[in-house]
Amino acid sequence: MLVGGKEMRSLWYEEGCLKLIDQRKLPAKLEIFEARAVEDVAYAIKEMVVRGAPAIGCAAAYGMAMADDVEKAAELLKSTRPTAHDLFYAVDYMLEKIGRGEDTLKAADEYVESIIEKCRKIGENGKKLIPKNARILTHCNAGALATVDYGTALAPIRMAKDKNIFVWVDETRPRLQGLLTAWELEQEGIEYAIIADNAAGYFMKNGNVDLVIVGADRIAANYDVANKIGTYEKAVVAKENDIPFYVAAPLSTFDESIEDGSKIKIEERNEEEVMSIYHWKPKKARNPAFDVTPAKYITAIITEEGIIEVNK
Amino acid sequence: MLVGGKEMRSLWYEEGCLKLIDQRKLPAKLEIFEARAVEDVAYAIKEMVVRGAPAIGCAAAYGMAMADDVEKAAELLKSTRPTAHDLFYAVDYMLEKIGRGEDTLKAADEYVESIIEKCRKIGENGKKLIPKNARILTHCNAGALATVDYGTALAPIRMAKDKNIFVWVDETRPRLQGLLTAWELEQEGIEYAIIADNAAGYFMKNGNVDLVIVGADRIAANYDVANKIGTYEKAVVAKENDIPFYVAAPLSTFDESIEDGSKIKIEERNEEEVMSIYHWKPKKARNPAFDVTPAKYITAIITEEGIIEVNK
Repeated sequence: MLVGGKEMRSLWYEEGCLKLIDQRKLPAKLEIFEARAVEDVAYAIKEMVVRGAPAIGCAAAYGMAMADDVEKAAELLKSTRPTAHDLFYAVDYMLEKIGRGEDTLKAADEYVESIIEKCRKIGENGKKLIPKNARILTHCNAGALATVDYGTALAPIRMAKDKNIFVWVDETRPRLQGLLTAWELEQEGIEYAIIADNAAGYFMKNGNVDLVIVGADRIAANYDVANKIGTYEKAVVAKENDIPFYVAAPLSTFDESIEDGSKIKIEERNEEEVMSIYHWKPKKARNPAFDVTPAKYITAIITEEGIIEVNK
Repeated sequence: MLVGGKEMRSLWYEEGCLKLIDQRKLPAKLEIFEARAVEDVAYAIKEMVVRGAPAIGCAAAYGMAMADDVEKAAELLKSTRPTAHDLFYAVDYMLEKIGRGEDTLKAADEYVESIIEKCRKIGENGKKLIPKNARILTHCNAGALATVDYGTALAPIRMAKDKNIFVWVDETRPRLQGLLTAWELEQEGIEYAIIADNAAGYFMKNGNVDLVIVGADRIAANYDVANKIGTYEKAVVAKENDIPFYVAAPLSTFDESIEDGSKIKIEERNEEEVMSIYHWKPKKARNPAFDVTPAKYITAIITEEGIIEVNK
């Protein structure tokens, strides 16, 4: 991704140190967090210096490469964010490589490069779905920040930069990850406008949205998609207005063991996340972090291996 | 409405002074704003001490009653919020009464009582649509604060208090008027939870919403309804989930001169309203304040004269 006009990744290893864009500070401030030991990496994951399942996995891979006691390091890293599937996958991947006596830093590098390569291919495949002058709606941040580079939903958008596109960015309450998307697009020089989540339907109905692209947290065997809260509403309204609704995700997001979306457990987070912008404390708030979009609203899923047409 | 356990209105006239609950301070703080001259009333309307079209009209009626030079007062009041239809209606109503030599304070009192009576009747009519143990979703604040007493969407909810109801309150970005609704419900002792607007669809799909009630800013001849931004999305998702979607509004909100919703002009407000909670300034934000919900998504409209079944 471009940052200040230069190519940058959301994290990289340099001279015995894992460097991470501090996503707690973005977009207000670009600061680099330096992790010099596995404990620092665990802190960075736990405190959300790094966020987004693929990026968390990559950070953990370097954390393992930096560890002296690998069993202890594995346990520590796995305890940071219990629900991120990539985290467990990356730690186990590294344990296996270490068990085989392979070079740990090389193994971590390879892991990260494979993640980036998948995102690049998602971008290439997805780009074909974006017509010239397209006005695209996206929700949350499925960008380079969440995946080290390119992103999932943002990869096709990045690669379609030369098509004179425009992006509607849902602010994505309660955590406002839309701001990270806006920041990435601004760095990339892609035109956008941020909107309250309530306004997406207005622009869809008025013919101002040509397609929607979002990321995914988990995809069931029947192609029901769990993603950031609000995705379901956008998908229903998109279908109602005959607007194509695309999901961009690597094949590792597909969970064949889950029959359909109703079996996906939805995390409900602290109500403080909702209330933190209020100057008053309501008696009660509810804060589901994700929702499930049934496959019937999804036009296609863009993967690194090709496009899965869910509904023609 | 109940405030601190006692009956209160959002504004009232007392000893030569118009007193208004200062809605700029709510819900963090309950403060009374005192308007002793028509200039103070104009200030209160312009600066949103009082908000909600019916309440604005009532404040303006008292403003006219307090004026020495009525022509000048009418001009001043009409210049405060150019789009609020009730404001113009109330000022013209008072000019006519004054022209006939009637008692101005009595005329203003009558105007306000007629508004309150309409809301009370909307409550009585709407209450019949609310089953026992109903879980109701509402959007924005169509409450007593906006209408002097009872509210429009909140009137049936208030009157169904004895039915063991629960209310899902959309926070209603960007201006977060859902907080005013939460405050009213808390004062009334009605159970509620506030949610990010993104979460409404999640609760609808999971069977946690039995009906939706919202207010209206303008209703076209074909029953298309203009209301706070986001209403359209909620209506589409409600219909998709077979959840009744009710609009509560006095007959004065019906604009027979407007054929359908596409002819309703939508106000786009300052992008600062969206960005004020951010710690970073995006290059561009868009901020439509209202949207139009086509009649096909509306189950019925609750008025003071009865219930209009739009779709059976």
